[in-house]
Parts: sequence; C-alpha cells; structure tokens
Amino acid sequence: MIHEAINLLRQGRIIFIHDSEDRENEVDAVIRADAVNTATITWLRKYAGGLICFVTDEAIGRQLGLGFMSELLRNAGFNGLVKRPGYGDDPAFSIYVNHVNTKTGIRDNDKALTISRLADVVKVAVGGEVSRARDLFYREFYAPGHVPILLGRVGRRFGHTELSLILAKMANIPPALVITEVLSDDGSAASVDYVREVASRMGSVVVAGHDIINHARELSII
Amino acid sequence: MIHEAINLLRQGRIIFIHDSEDRENEVDAVIRADAVNTATITWLRKYAGGLICFVTDEAIGRQLGLGFMSELLRNAGFNGLVKRPGYGDDPAFSIYVNHVNTKTGIRDNDKALTISRLADVVKVAVGGEVSRARDLFYREFYAPGHVPILLGRVGRRFGHTELSLILAKMANIPPALVITEVLSDDGSAASVDYVREVASRMGSVVVAGHDIINHARELSII
Repeated sequence: MIHEAINLLRQGRIIFIHDSEDRENEVDAVIRADAVNTATITWLRKYAGGLICFVTDEAIGRQLGLGFMSELLRNAGFNGLVKRPGYGDDPAFSIYVNHVNTKTGIRDNDKALTISRLADVVKVAVGGEVSRARDLFYREFYAPGHVPILLGRVGRRFGHTELSLILAKMANIPPALVITEVLSDDGSAASVDYVREVASRMGSVVVAGHDIINHARELSII
Repeated sequence: MIHEAINLLRQGRIIFIHDSEDRENEVDAVIRADAVNTATITWLRKYAGGLICFVTDEAIGRQLGLGFMSELLRNAGFNGLVKRPGYGDDPAFSIYVNHVNTKTGIRDNDKALTISRLADVVKVAVGGEVSRARDLFYREFYAPGHVPILLGRVGRRFGHTELSLILAKMANIPPALVITEVLSDDGSAASVDYVREVASRMGSVVVAGHDIINHARELSII
C-alpha cells in the first residue's frame, strides 16, 4: 500500500492519507503541487470539500521569510486567541496568498495558477537559489489571498501536512504538495471506509499515518 | 427587487449580490449569520463553492481588537507581499477563527458553530456591552482557524462585504452575515444569469450592487 501510494504520488495522481484515530481522524486528498491544474482544483473542491492548502516544509518557508500564523498573531498581541485546537497540535498555517495574475483568487483556475507558481518557487529554493526564490515569491504573490501555505514540522508533528511531506521525500519529489480534507456529503469528516471506496474507483489508495511513519523510520527518514 | 432582497434577508433566507462588472464581477450568496446552521454551510459549500466568510463592520471588529490582515502583515514586515488585487480594492480580510468547541474547524457543523457564536458576539457588541463581547470573543474562539472574518468599510469600499452590510442595515438586522462566492460547475465565477436561475428556483433573488448603493443613498444610509 505504502509503495503504491509513493508511486502514485510521484506520478502526479491524487492519493489519500488518514492521520490517525487519536488525532483529527480525517482523511486528506494529497497531490504533488506541480501536477495541479484547474481540473484538479475542481475535483478537490467538489469531491474532497475541505480547504485546498499548499504544503511545504518549515525550512523552505523560513527561507522565503515565512513563519507560522500563530507566531504572527502572538507578535501582534493576539496571545489570548492563539490556543491549541481540540486535537492537540499547533496548527501548520502560515499566510494565505494569491498569484498576482489571478483575477480574484477564489476561482479554480486562479487557485491552480497560485499553486503551480508556488511549486516553482519551492523548486528554485530546493535547487539552492534561495535569494532568487525569495525574489520570485515577493514579486509574484500577494497576501492576504486564498491559498493557505502550510509549513510542515517533519519529525516533530504528525499531521497531514507532515505525513504528505514524508511521502514526498520517499517519492523523491519536491516538498510542494496540495492537501484537502475529504468531507462526506453532509459535511462531516468522511470515514476511512468511504474514502477507500472513492480511492478504489479512481485506482488510488488510502494510506494510514502510522504506516507512513513506520516506513519512514525504517528508512531513517525521520 | 431590492425590497424583496431586504425581506428575504431579514427572514434568514439566502439572497445573492452581484457587485458590478467593473469590479470582481462575481455573485455572492448572502445570509444573516444568526440564521446559519449546518445545512446552510453544506449548501454554501456544494452549491456556492467559494470561501465561506463571516462579515461584520470595521467598527465592531475594532471593538473586538481586530484589524485587517494587510495591516498585520505590514507590521510583521511583509510590506512586499501586501499588494492590491487585480480588481483594485484593499481586501476585507481580518483573521481566521474557529470556535473552541469545534473538532477541527473544517467540517460543516464546525463552521456553523463558529459562525453562530460569532453572530452572538456581534450582538453583544451592538448591544453596547463591548467589553463583554471582547471577553466572549477571546474566551470562545481561537486563531488561526477556518472561518475568515471580513471587516466592512461601509461608504468607502463597495465589495460584497460592504454591500451585504448595507442590506443588513436596511433590513434592520445585526451587522453579522455570511457571504460566499458562487462558482459555476467548472470553477469559474458563475454568471449573473446562471445565479438568477438558481435564485428563482429557491424563491430568492439576485440584487445588483448599484441598486443597493442607490437605494442606500436615497435613504441617506451611506
């Protein structure tokens, strides 16, 4: 299952990650960001239903000058509002951005543009050209926008953000992904069984967080 | 049309606002926040498709200690990222919040809870108990969350945020609304004609921004 997930992810297909019953107990749809087009966003909006987020790792975020929204809010005096969610983890949210060539940012083609250009910026940073990546980011994006950037703390947190980054590492693809919670028709979190059916119809798989973590430990990735 | 929109809004029904062809040229679904339940969120998610936002006016936001996300970002040194969107207006975004009793914040029932409790906070503030409203807000919510708060600059900006607040004023209901962009099936902005059909099937109406503005000027509301 884990090998199939890694292969599908590498190929640019949507796969699914279930974090764990002790955490959010949610399944997220996951795809590499450089494979995203307008049709992907439409699918995620209609058939996943959650928030369409761009994921990269914290180190890349810091290179671009980004930190966590919780830090930003604390520094702005909102200490009283920065609490841990019920499931216990510090949120991965950084800021929300749009590409400058979007019309309003909310439309599916706008989000596809924002996400594929973010993937380009991450690739430049990963390639070692940090100051060029930073320039690109500040020139080509504006905030506040409609695509949240999530920063993963791999090895220290085990949310969908980090699990997707670990899979990306095992797939040997850039740390630039899109994740979206899968909701059921009535807007509750979709059950693992339900998503397993959806995945099977698409020729895809649902992989469990603990399988990703165990495999990554075997490979000494985390 | 404008009178029908005002009546429907007062009754807690979903109505639609088209800003203008010179601006975003988008139609938003609008409902008073204290009428929102889980089924409303499910409808907005599936049949509107845009971002489900909570709207109040800037004065109330300031009473709660809130400002605009653009200010927050500028103060945090992100000046280079705070640009005006293509359609020319400063965004209305403040921060994103969840109610503390939500599970993850993203599910439809979670968003309904966040939104109805935000409506309660606004009512307390409007009733003049500003410090109680502020206490409630800081005790019952956390950030970053999944419901963006939009602050309206009525009379100075004419986006869906402000247009919905003007309608609320004419309907004599609290300045606490939910607005969501209506997308078409392929994720482009839905045309006014398309939304007119949807509205008609639900016994609702689409009202044009300039009609709201003209009517508000006649009544000296703006």
